[in-house]
Amino acid sequence: MSLLSLQTKLTAGVMSVVLAIASFSSLAAHPNLVITQNDVIKMRSALDSKGHFSERYYSLKSQVDQEIAFPSVVPVPKDGGGGYTHERHKKNYQLMYRAGIIYQLSQEQKYADYVRDMLLQYATLYPSLDVHPKRKVKSQNPGKLFWQSLNEAMWLVYTIQAYDLVHNALTDQQINTIEQQLLRPVALFLSEGQPTTFNKVHNHGTWATAGVGMAGYVMNEPEWVEKALYDLDKSGKGGFLKQLDLLFSPQGYYNEGPYYQRFALLPFVTFAQAIAHNEPERKIAEHRDGILLKAIDTTIQLSYNGLFFPINDAIKSKGIDTIELVHGVTVAYSLTNDTGYLDIAKQQGQIILSGDGLKVAQALDKGLATPYEFKSAAFGDGNDGKQGALVVMRTQVGGNQALLFKPAAQGLGHGHFDKLTWQFYDHGNEIVSDYGAARFLNVEAKYGGRYLPENNSYAKQTVAHNTVVVDETSHFNASVSVGNRNAPTLNFFETSNVGTVSSGEISTAYNGVELARTLALINVPELDSTIALDVFDVTAQAEHQFDLPLHYKGQLIDTSFALRANTTQLAALGSKNGYQHLWLKGQAKPKNGLAKVTWLNDNGRFYTQTSLVKGDESFLFTQIGANDPNFNLRNENGFIRRVNGQKKHTFVSVLEPHGEYNPSKEYTLEAVSRVTKLEYSQQGDLTLVELDIKGKSYLVAINKAQNATKNTFTFKNKEFTLNGRLGVYAMKNNQE
Amino acid sequence: MSLLSLQTKLTAGVMSVVLAIASFSSLAAHPNLVITQNDVIKMRSALDSKGHFSERYYSLKSQVDQEIAFPSVVPVPKDGGGGYTHERHKKNYQLMYRAGIIYQLSQEQKYADYVRDMLLQYATLYPSLDVHPKRKVKSQNPGKLFWQSLNEAMWLVYTIQAYDLVHNALTDQQINTIEQQLLRPVALFLSEGQPTTFNKVHNHGTWATAGVGMAGYVMNEPEWVEKALYDLDKSGKGGFLKQLDLLFSPQGYYNEGPYYQRFALLPFVTFAQAIAHNEPERKIAEHRDGILLKAIDTTIQLSYNGLFFPINDAIKSKGIDTIELVHGVTVAYSLTNDTGYLDIAKQQGQIILSGDGLKVAQALDKGLATPYEFKSAAFGDGNDGKQGALVVMRTQVGGNQALLFKPAAQGLGHGHFDKLTWQFYDHGNEIVSDYGAARFLNVEAKYGGRYLPENNSYAKQTVAHNTVVVDETSHFNASVSVGNRNAPTLNFFETSNVGTVSSGEISTAYNGVELARTLALINVPELDSTIALDVFDVTAQAEHQFDLPLHYKGQLIDTSFALRANTTQLAALGSKNGYQHLWLKGQAKPKNGLAKVTWLNDNGRFYTQTSLVKGDESFLFTQIGANDPNFNLRNENGFIRRVNGQKKHTFVSVLEPHGEYNPSKEYTLEAVSRVTKLEYSQQGDLTLVELDIKGKSYLVAINKAQNATKNTFTFKNKEFTLNGRLGVYAMKNNQE
Repeated sequence: MSLLSLQTKLTAGVMSVVLAIASFSSLAAHPNLVITQNDVIKMRSALDSKGHFSERYYSLKSQVDQEIAFPSVVPVPKDGGGGYTHERHKKNYQLMYRAGIIYQLSQEQKYADYVRDMLLQYATLYPSLDVHPKRKVKSQNPGKLFWQSLNEAMWLVYTIQAYDLVHNALTDQQINTIEQQLLRPVALFLSEGQPTTFNKVHNHGTWATAGVGMAGYVMNEPEWVEKALYDLDKSGKGGFLKQLDLLFSPQGYYNEGPYYQRFALLPFVTFAQAIAHNEPERKIAEHRDGILLKAIDTTIQLSYNGLFFPINDAIKSKGIDTIELVHGVTVAYSLTNDTGYLDIAKQQGQIILSGDGLKVAQALDKGLATPYEFKSAAFGDGNDGKQGALVVMRTQVGGNQALLFKPAAQGLGHGHFDKLTWQFYDHGNEIVSDYGAARFLNVEAKYGGRYLPENNSYAKQTVAHNTVVVDETSHFNASVSVGNRNAPTLNFFETSNVGTVSSGEISTAYNGVELARTLALINVPELDSTIALDVFDVTAQAEHQFDLPLHYKGQLIDTSFALRANTTQLAALGSKNGYQHLWLKGQAKPKNGLAKVTWLNDNGRFYTQTSLVKGDESFLFTQIGANDPNFNLRNENGFIRRVNGQKKHTFVSVLEPHGEYNPSKEYTLEAVSRVTKLEYSQQGDLTLVELDIKGKSYLVAINKAQNATKNTFTFKNKEFTLNGRLGVYAMKNNQE
Repeated sequence: MSLLSLQTKLTAGVMSVVLAIASFSSLAAHPNLVITQNDVIKMRSALDSKGHFSERYYSLKSQVDQEIAFPSVVPVPKDGGGGYTHERHKKNYQLMYRAGIIYQLSQEQKYADYVRDMLLQYATLYPSLDVHPKRKVKSQNPGKLFWQSLNEAMWLVYTIQAYDLVHNALTDQQINTIEQQLLRPVALFLSEGQPTTFNKVHNHGTWATAGVGMAGYVMNEPEWVEKALYDLDKSGKGGFLKQLDLLFSPQGYYNEGPYYQRFALLPFVTFAQAIAHNEPERKIAEHRDGILLKAIDTTIQLSYNGLFFPINDAIKSKGIDTIELVHGVTVAYSLTNDTGYLDIAKQQGQIILSGDGLKVAQALDKGLATPYEFKSAAFGDGNDGKQGALVVMRTQVGGNQALLFKPAAQGLGHGHFDKLTWQFYDHGNEIVSDYGAARFLNVEAKYGGRYLPENNSYAKQTVAHNTVVVDETSHFNASVSVGNRNAPTLNFFETSNVGTVSSGEISTAYNGVELARTLALINVPELDSTIALDVFDVTAQAEHQFDLPLHYKGQLIDTSFALRANTTQLAALGSKNGYQHLWLKGQAKPKNGLAKVTWLNDNGRFYTQTSLVKGDESFLFTQIGANDPNFNLRNENGFIRRVNGQKKHTFVSVLEPHGEYNPSKEYTLEAVSRVTKLEYSQQGDLTLVELDIKGKSYLVAINKAQNATKNTFTFKNKEFTLNGRLGVYAMKNNQE
């Protein structure tokens, strides 16, 4: 049963919170967390019909059958992430959870027995355990079964559900053993035992509160639920509700970025379902104007071609098919009946065996899916939505394209120092890229599978991104705490049929330096093409060196200027702040005019960045890989536009996708940039860019005024009217 | 109508060759090259039925309709490959050919008119042309419409068919103009005008003879056909039949490798069809024991996951869906009715609008396709099949794997200096890789789209491959002519249920140095795994430096030995023979024992090369990209095993695929090599390798005797019997 349906049944919260603390009315019911008794009845009746649900059921049942044919193994904790005992305990909680579901649906005793026996094995092991031998040095949150309590909390989230699912098959004595020797100690260890983690407004805290809160429902400990919701001291300063209030912006953006957003989503969605089923009067789905649904939807929006935009610490292969988002989409469809979510569910190709999962499965059976609409939007950052924003621009003109612009807040410890950076995607691939996290998840040989040292020394540093670096020093001097206190400002965002434009600025990334960037993704339907316009203003009180890197994906094809390559020796570009990881492969100082760099992406298309330069910029061509003794980094390419000794500089450029390279079919089209003119001027608050492309002339006007009302201006003796922020005007045809 | 059906109709060659020279009996018939009048009747009748054929017809018709809506453009030749006029003339001949087919099938006059008008435009232009302005300096074979006559010959191959298809729609005057001003001059230019190219036993010669020969059929010039078949002087020293005799081995391997094989295939297949239709008495399909069919089949065999093995000059994205092989597979199915070819046709997803194409389409409509069987085989090289061989080993144990071993001949000008090199493929990807050709086909900015200078300076050099380099000098000192005169020897090849083994050697790659390599792809079904065993013996008269490079695809994960990386400076490894293009990223000198290098491929799997070393080998880790001023090379990784001052050295190693890295689903399995023991010994002609992997012990025995009969031997006090070349024996279990 969905959150909403349960809640709308209730006219108002009848029971007082005081009463709720005493005991739960639904106490006798098992299961009653994500899956309710009522869900079970409906699910059982769907097993005989052909369709997505029964298909998933029989496939999972056969998997579980294979697994439970082996004796269960509950090893003494020994290994860190990726190691045997770590992976075994992870597997165990997933297996118990699945076996529990199969038990409820099949009503076959053997599945309950398997879960029961494993729980009893854990109940024997757990009391003997000290903190994990492979815990991280100085860690505030070691686990016992796992090296960090985060994994322990995840274990509890799954295991408490498994326990709830098999509860009615257990004897009182078994219940007593499992609760007293295992579930209570784990819940207490994760709450009272680690108050800092439990109360922290952070995804680790969400897993802990979700596990402990659900244990409270199952074991009739309303106090635990209160603490999970409102902090150990029930002050409301921490806890699950505070996490819902602070970790998402009003638009549902999680300030660590989509990689952690999808990770954080699961305990939010899971615990919220449990709350809705046990205490509908809390109206959790309506909390903060439906923040949970917004959070789910925003996670989907922050993907391209099935993968999340890899901002901050993000492993790039994570995408919308992640199990956390499968749960999220399942709940989102159940809450809204929006058939766009079925499109995502279809792409995910996974069905959850729950009441909501049944609803999705049956809708998919009926072919109700409609295309999910990816939109251009500015997702406000911070709990008030005013700490900058993460901006997504999209278009279908000339292919499926996306531009990500990041005038967003720091995003806690996993945040990167990349204010106002951007990324560009086309025809399924990264074109202007972000390194993501430097990490090989669970690969023991790579720093134990943890974040690599190069994550700090390179991936987080500003130069690893596509934004301005002043004096080879990262934003906020790479201080997370300073970064967390200083968000950029989103000046404006607008989307219309001519394209999408956004502008952001920050004056705190460096002392005495203002960074302001305006990016526009402009449709040029006459050319079946899109261009990205970038105007980056740097204004400083003193003279500095300004670097603007662009990390491109592909093979360099051509430059419009002579490039002096370092052919026999390479040296690192710098000694710190990420520069020590860049080999300087070549450099150039293009003359006044247009400086073009063309590369070929693996998608078989060409991309040219045309920069408007005055002869004062150096172009430094780099490859990642210096000071990398363990070959931990990917050897990707980029170039840095650099000016020295400047107080003020404007980096102007357009990025232009063009042509096609098809060696298989043996044709190559438009391998050469079509941009023949790029000029830039200001008229008060108006930025005016003249652009000639493929014989057509355009004037692009961007109104940067605080309030963009209708604006009439004259340019080259012609009069123009601009409504809103972005105007694109076809000028005379120069040539054909 | 197929080659075979036409031929089997005839009991014997009734007409003498002398008679055939005088005139063709089929003279009046148009069309009568690849498509006959009879084919046209059958094809027309298939257009009203739903299916692959009519679908392709209507789709092509609509494409052609779009194209012919524009006025035809026949520009004065100006640009080289990839340039406008080059691409336009290519497009024109394809368009004329297609419009000709649509004319025959639709019987609508407008298609014939379009071809006619374009032919007349060409007839006006052609007499005014001198050789192409962008012809290559010193080229013996410039074209007029194109920079090289190869393209001009391709133009003729298509255009003569187009002309044949619309012939019956032309007036006598139009026929006269087109033949006298265009087709005859082109045919004469490509034959008498360029005797060296026309007579050359080389794919350029095949295109020329095919074009000229077909022109002979269409324009009733039996003399042209004779010259096309038997050399301009009709001596049989050159010409199409000599090409069939010399360019393919008896097994149908084309000595330049599969990339050029598929390219060469089209004129062979096309002209052969025309010969069969016009002069069935020549029994062209039966020529040399059906060499044409073998050539087609071998081209398919020399692919992995849809792409050709990239030996020699090869662009790596070329694969079985190339149009040349679509024609080839169409003919192969028609000749054999082997439904395995339909599997390939299905993967190609293209239907040829011809009589044979109709047969394929109808068979696909009926769902007759069965899986095409890729086999382990040694494809003999050279016209006698005895100039070494190209060896393919395949297995399905532990995934779809292929090992390519190359004790093959040089393969003319496009050959690489890589005797005894190997490549390895698993789960769809390259694992141990070959650079292929250094070329961006038709990309003007990259050296005019031609082979890059780095193709000679790097891609062809021995160090760019996975085989031994002596004293940093390439095989045959990189002399093509020396290479062509000296092929390796295939010692043996054997495939059985335990695996596949092959051995080859060459003593002429270097003066006074014998290179002998034995490779085995061994199934270990108990471990659901395969390993590749490599034993490379180098024996020299004097002391030398021996290098054995391994170019791996992926990210270095771990080495079992300490690696001294060059972290702040990189230098080129050498100054010539390809070494100048390698950055030395790090080095190590592993101690006596097992030296492991583990990498992670993009397919999410780990691969470990375990080398058996005695403490005398250095491991040099390299990245391609030094001395590359225009960023022409891909920056791929490798390592070189090196010994100095040796007369004799045996490089022993196993390559082991293992585990899985799945950051999306957040699991990592078996990231660490399971090989714990590797020992090597010789007993007479027997090579004995002890291998412990994942707690299991195996003895691998390879019989290198000239004649491998039943062999009984004792090893560690146990007796073994080896039938054939390769034995794999499970020994005691060391541990579990």
